[in-house]
Amino acid sequence: MQKINLTEKLSKFTAHWSPKLIAELNGQHVKLVKFRGEFVWHHHEHEDELFHVVRGRFRMEFRDRIVDLREGEMLVVPRGVEHRPVADEEVCVLLFEPAATVNTGNTGGARTVVQPDWI
Amino acid sequence: MQKINLTEKLSKFTAHWSPKLIAELNGQHVKLVKFRGEFVWHHHEHEDELFHVVRGRFRMEFRDRIVDLREGEMLVVPRGVEHRPVADEEVCVLLFEPAATVNTGNTGGARTVVQPDWI
Repeated sequence: MQKINLTEKLSKFTAHWSPKLIAELNGQHVKLVKFRGEFVWHHHEHEDELFHVVRGRFRMEFRDRIVDLREGEMLVVPRGVEHRPVADEEVCVLLFEPAATVNTGNTGGARTVVQPDWI
Repeated sequence: MQKINLTEKLSKFTAHWSPKLIAELNGQHVKLVKFRGEFVWHHHEHEDELFHVVRGRFRMEFRDRIVDLREGEMLVVPRGVEHRPVADEEVCVLLFEPAATVNTGNTGGARTVVQPDWI
């Protein structure tokens, strides 16, 4: 039962697209991730995902629209909905999602992180 | 699939100790709440709770210690652990917890909110 300081946790990694675990509760994971550039199009069969911008901004692309997200804003992407995060500059994002969630969803590939590290 | 702006949501209510719903995913609720003063001692039988300070500061009291929490810090209180949030000045907190969670847990009483409003 230690408090978690987001600034301190964000100072512990630099890699993009590689989520890090900071908390677990009720079968859900809380992760921090840094985005820069374009991710892969993917969806999650069984998991809804929450994206909360801690620092910076990015856009969530969907097949039919784009949602711009800035610091202090969040978005829930429901299961089954194809999406692709894109960040022109580095952005720091907090994720809430089921523990079973894999970052690249149905798409897989080189950026897949099956078991994120705790930081 | 609308983005959620925390500042805008926080402007929509003033009551203390009355959580408001802002998102739902995977059977979990995301809520905003404003604390000021002392809450009731309670625990939750079946739910872990995450407290994330959006603005201000408060302390989480446990029977054997106190954890001070400031903006950008979070704490997970595991199920079964008695706790009491106390805020000397108003603080705005994001909660992430199972949809079934009731704010006063096992204690009940006048401050109980069984079904929080969506804002």
